[in-house]
Amino acid sequence: MTQHSRGIITPGRSPVPRSMIGCAVFGAGVIGEVHARNVSRHGSFDLRYVIDPAIDRARTLAQTWGGTAAADIAPALADDTVAAVIIASSTSAHEEHALACAGAGKAFICEKPLAGSLEGARACVASAAASGVVAATGFNRRLDHDYAAVAARTLDGEIGAVEMLHFASRGHKPPAPETAPHSGGMIREKGAHFFDLAAWLTGAEPVEVYAVGACLVDPRFADYGDVDTAALTVRFDSGALATFDFGRRAVFGQDELIEVFGSQGMLVTGRHRRGNVAHFTGGAVTEAEVMPGWHERFADSYVAELDVFAAAMTHGEPVHASLADGLRAQAVAEAAVRSIKQNRPVAIERIW
Amino acid sequence: MTQHSRGIITPGRSPVPRSMIGCAVFGAGVIGEVHARNVSRHGSFDLRYVIDPAIDRARTLAQTWGGTAAADIAPALADDTVAAVIIASSTSAHEEHALACAGAGKAFICEKPLAGSLEGARACVASAAASGVVAATGFNRRLDHDYAAVAARTLDGEIGAVEMLHFASRGHKPPAPETAPHSGGMIREKGAHFFDLAAWLTGAEPVEVYAVGACLVDPRFADYGDVDTAALTVRFDSGALATFDFGRRAVFGQDELIEVFGSQGMLVTGRHRRGNVAHFTGGAVTEAEVMPGWHERFADSYVAELDVFAAAMTHGEPVHASLADGLRAQAVAEAAVRSIKQNRPVAIERIW
Amino acid sequence: MTQHSRGIITPGRSPVPRSMIGCAVFGAGVIGEVHARNVSRHGSFDLRYVIDPAIDRARTLAQTWGGTAAADIAPALADDTVAAVIIASSTSAHEEHALACAGAGKAFICEKPLAGSLEGARACVASAAASGVVAATGFNRRLDHDYAAVAARTLDGEIGAVEMLHFASRGHKPPAPETAPHSGGMIREKGAHFFDLAAWLTGAEPVEVYAVGACLVDPRFADYGDVDTAALTVRFDSGALATFDFGRRAVFGQDELIEVFGSQGMLVTGRHRRGNVAHFTGGAVTEAEVMPGWHERFADSYVAELDVFAAAMTHGEPVHASLADGLRAQAVAEAAVRSIKQNRPVAIERIW
Amino acid sequence: MTQHSRGIITPGRSPVPRSMIGCAVFGAGVIGEVHARNVSRHGSFDLRYVIDPAIDRARTLAQTWGGTAAADIAPALADDTVAAVIIASSTSAHEEHALACAGAGKAFICEKPLAGSLEGARACVASAAASGVVAATGFNRRLDHDYAAVAARTLDGEIGAVEMLHFASRGHKPPAPETAPHSGGMIREKGAHFFDLAAWLTGAEPVEVYAVGACLVDPRFADYGDVDTAALTVRFDSGALATFDFGRRAVFGQDELIEVFGSQGMLVTGRHRRGNVAHFTGGAVTEAEVMPGWHERFADSYVAELDVFAAAMTHGEPVHASLADGLRAQAVAEAAVRSIKQNRPVAIERIW
Repeated sequence: MTQHSRGIITPGRSPVPRSMIGCAVFGAGVIGEVHARNVSRHGSFDLRYVIDPAIDRARTLAQTWGGTAAADIAPALADDTVAAVIIASSTSAHEEHALACAGAGKAFICEKPLAGSLEGARACVASAAASGVVAATGFNRRLDHDYAAVAARTLDGEIGAVEMLHFASRGHKPPAPETAPHSGGMIREKGAHFFDLAAWLTGAEPVEVYAVGACLVDPRFADYGDVDTAALTVRFDSGALATFDFGRRAVFGQDELIEVFGSQGMLVTGRHRRGNVAHFTGGAVTEAEVMPGWHERFADSYVAELDVFAAAMTHGEPVHASLADGLRAQAVAEAAVRSIKQNRPVAIERIW
Repeated sequence: MTQHSRGIITPGRSPVPRSMIGCAVFGAGVIGEVHARNVSRHGSFDLRYVIDPAIDRARTLAQTWGGTAAADIAPALADDTVAAVIIASSTSAHEEHALACAGAGKAFICEKPLAGSLEGARACVASAAASGVVAATGFNRRLDHDYAAVAARTLDGEIGAVEMLHFASRGHKPPAPETAPHSGGMIREKGAHFFDLAAWLTGAEPVEVYAVGACLVDPRFADYGDVDTAALTVRFDSGALATFDFGRRAVFGQDELIEVFGSQGMLVTGRHRRGNVAHFTGGAVTEAEVMPGWHERFADSYVAELDVFAAAMTHGEPVHASLADGLRAQAVAEAAVRSIKQNRPVAIERIW
Repeated sequence: MTQHSRGIITPGRSPVPRSMIGCAVFGAGVIGEVHARNVSRHGSFDLRYVIDPAIDRARTLAQTWGGTAAADIAPALADDTVAAVIIASSTSAHEEHALACAGAGKAFICEKPLAGSLEGARACVASAAASGVVAATGFNRRLDHDYAAVAARTLDGEIGAVEMLHFASRGHKPPAPETAPHSGGMIREKGAHFFDLAAWLTGAEPVEVYAVGACLVDPRFADYGDVDTAALTVRFDSGALATFDFGRRAVFGQDELIEVFGSQGMLVTGRHRRGNVAHFTGGAVTEAEVMPGWHERFADSYVAELDVFAAAMTHGEPVHASLADGLRAQAVAEAAVRSIKQNRPVAIERIW
Repeated sequence: MTQHSRGIITPGRSPVPRSMIGCAVFGAGVIGEVHARNVSRHGSFDLRYVIDPAIDRARTLAQTWGGTAAADIAPALADDTVAAVIIASSTSAHEEHALACAGAGKAFICEKPLAGSLEGARACVASAAASGVVAATGFNRRLDHDYAAVAARTLDGEIGAVEMLHFASRGHKPPAPETAPHSGGMIREKGAHFFDLAAWLTGAEPVEVYAVGACLVDPRFADYGDVDTAALTVRFDSGALATFDFGRRAVFGQDELIEVFGSQGMLVTGRHRRGNVAHFTGGAVTEAEVMPGWHERFADSYVAELDVFAAAMTHGEPVHASLADGLRAQAVAEAAVRSIKQNRPVAIERIW
């Protein structure tokens, strides 16, 4: 029943089917807008619904990108012309929406986390497996051009056995501390992406995590049990070790890179620049600035996600990240949160 | 009457009008296809005609991107719903097409060169000026993100007075030598872009050129009076000097960079990479490959060209490169070709 | 009594005294040879003795670089013309040699660790303090051009408050596993440098460490209780967090960099290249190789160490790293070793 | 009789003889000081004389670096313990000094140009050949680590046939214009190095040069018939083309790079940085500054020159650059100067 997407999905490689797939976007917030725009512009999808309990937000998106605005998901699920759903609703609604999609036989991509609890996430995985729908976790970073290249080359054996990994990720500007309860906090929200990448890149299973955190950016994060700065180590069953440097604010832009060190070499992505102009002047050489935020840095990967989704629905190709991948990353995140609270390494139970 | 576009048009800055502008693309070759696709996808243009004497090529494009295929330009010029034309036809047809557009009151972008002769090019400039239509030369490199940034910063005075410029441009793979009579040869085809950039970046007028050429890539270029390797120097009326390294084949991709050296500093663009992954292994660090060709390297700039064109037609904003800019670049190219033939520096007559 | 060297010693800034200081080098192994050569060539030092129980090794060095070879340190300590000693003997002899130097009133630089035990190290610190001799720990990386620049700029406040640090250090080729008991193992040998750098760069005290290790390079390291791959996190009393990626083998050379992330920006050193030549060819851009080993990478810093030592002895300037700095780094290393063994975070007792 | 040094002399490869070679340095100016210091510190040379008509300057150098100060070269030439001479005197004295060395059987390195006229330079070449002394032109750039690597890899065929070369060289600060008559001006002084490198890298002979110059840095250079900004093209008998961008002032440091483009790839040196620290902050990434001047950039190559000289004297190995190489570069420079004056391409007479 458990399936992981370990193969490399190279964005753009798969022939995108020309037949239009009716699609609904659940959630009209920041990420919902990204998806609504991309679905609207995509050659394989037809945007039929934008759904949000905050009906005004849904209406705004629908006016710009098409489709019918609704507050409730029922009409979309009942509509036979809708074959696909992007679940970009609030985290607390993910489980309900994923189960509903699976029940209604709709293919779906669910933004992480799959559910508010590990039990809920397991239920989503099981339900989708039982119904046989195409289902993916929204780990768009797997489809980033450079991360996909690092993965393909690593899994091809170019650097030998993977021994260590290092991930740095800091957003440009911190979110409001009061959104922490909603997002689950930095470890769950940001960490999940990198716990997934680490498992994917090693081809191994995470077995233990140790995490320390601090509130150095804004002490108010502590009021919500969250941290804004964290250092983590994860041990994998292959013996590989990974370190993670996370933060909520980098004054210079989206501070993100990955390094995969192996027995035969190392693959490293740079911090992505905006442009390629160097300025030489007295005492300094100034290069192009770093990409300002995740939005700009990863814009292409959200489009690639739709390519992969369409190919999976039409040609039966694998999705880029399965629901089980989402469950695994969520399990690591939960263990990491516990590690911070209890200040001890926490074994990761193999529930995926 | 003479007008140059010296201001900086920052791609994407201008608000793109939402009203749809009927557009015809003349020419269904490689560059015609680029324009047809971009017009079709653009929010401000509606692709009405794809026109090529080779009607089959026109039909293929029209089927994919929309519009009516035609072998003749007459119906498009007579169609009141067509307000804009992209002249991407063969060089020998440019003059006729530009004059026809001006006569019919259609705004147009004309690929360079404007005509097969300087006299013809002057006629195009005069005709467009007389009719008052919006008209631009297809110098898309002015709208490349990095070149536009270099220009904006240079013209803002960031590096003081411009003293020297260096341009390198070599395509990945050489064109067939027998296309030389058609394209006008490397100096006219490739050089025009950089003669235009040099004038734009210096804000000065070119007064003399010296050029040497050779056939080192393929001796057959000589059979057509063309060269595949060339080194040029151009002197400007400001005193600034420019060197140009041109070639028809770089085994590693599109080899292109610009350097602007000034009294207070220097601005340099790198050779653009595809991706941002470094591979460390025994005895070497291997970076991402260079962009494979002009197509990939400058894809965005062709879209930006449509943005600017739409803004010019709708809001009266300046075009990125006027017809007079095209005439000037063509005059430099003709002088450079003469310089190679006569092996002497050739003064550039100020006809623009 | 406790003193740390927190100020920045910029190599080469201090005026090097021209008066010659008589100097003995204890130990004629790899690092002893580095020091003997540098002392011999240095304008302020006169190499008087090279001392090693393996008298042949001492003789070889003395023949090449000067001075008298001896098996025993007594003659050098009794020689009034000897004012300075470089303790580069085997780790097990450090404590005895340091105490002897302090007792004889000789200034000394002691390679880390100061002693085989923390108690021994404390005795060295106390003894040197009591005798008032100039004494330094051989933390040469503090005098590396780039690390010194990062420290100076960080302590000047250029990046605001230090929030996170990341250190990667992997040697090119692993040492023989059977040297582990002698060197103390990777955490003590390699780690000490970086625990010192981290304390120096943060201006804060380390309070807790968590470390995981593995034998991925050579399983025989486990036979000696050592690891060849390790990931560590250290928490500082300022709240700053540091991650460390350590390894014993990087096929591409000395793999080392430091990153200091602060509230106002970040300072990063690159992996140091040998030369500055890029090779562009089909499908790849290949840059100069990484520095092959610590020997080449840090050669200059050992010379700078002598500059600083001479200035300290002659002008009373501070040393680059005090004995207390050495003690602190050793304390962190011991805690890290314990953390690996017990798989739990270990509090670092403040004994320095 | 004509001999060129085309082989690659890798600095440091040749075993440096330990026997001391008595050496005199002619000239106690800026470059004389560089040589006096290096000779004094070099393991194979013994500095016996520092000679300058300005006896005070000679005395100052001799006091610091050793040897006897003299105003006249006669005693040194008569001294049998002197086997080698570095001719770093004023350009107007080069010919006399080179002929005197050849006549006295002293090996010598002569700074370029060999003489004030091409006839004088030919006389130097002939005289040294007749006497059979080891003689070299002071083209230290051939011994720069990176330039030597580019040459070795190019001559090994790594990039196929050399088709184009580009050289940029601009000093940090301009010399006083009134030194132009003394130095011969920018084209002769700076250009000679790069005309030599170009011939070396192509393995071909220069046949024609075209040069344009301007006084953009300081109009007073024109008062002395000099230029401070110049663009040149040189054609080689292999068909290869080279462009040169020269200038007297780059506000950001020594602005120098070389590019060699071939049929199979390209080798490029970067602009050399001082250090390897990147600073990321709001809106910018600032890298280490460029090397401030030729002094710092090429310090190592002057030492390597002595290594090669010693090996040539002791083991009969080839010098890095023959006198004929110096003559050739001088011939190109003279033709380039004529080209600027007459504004036409000038054929380079094959006199070397």
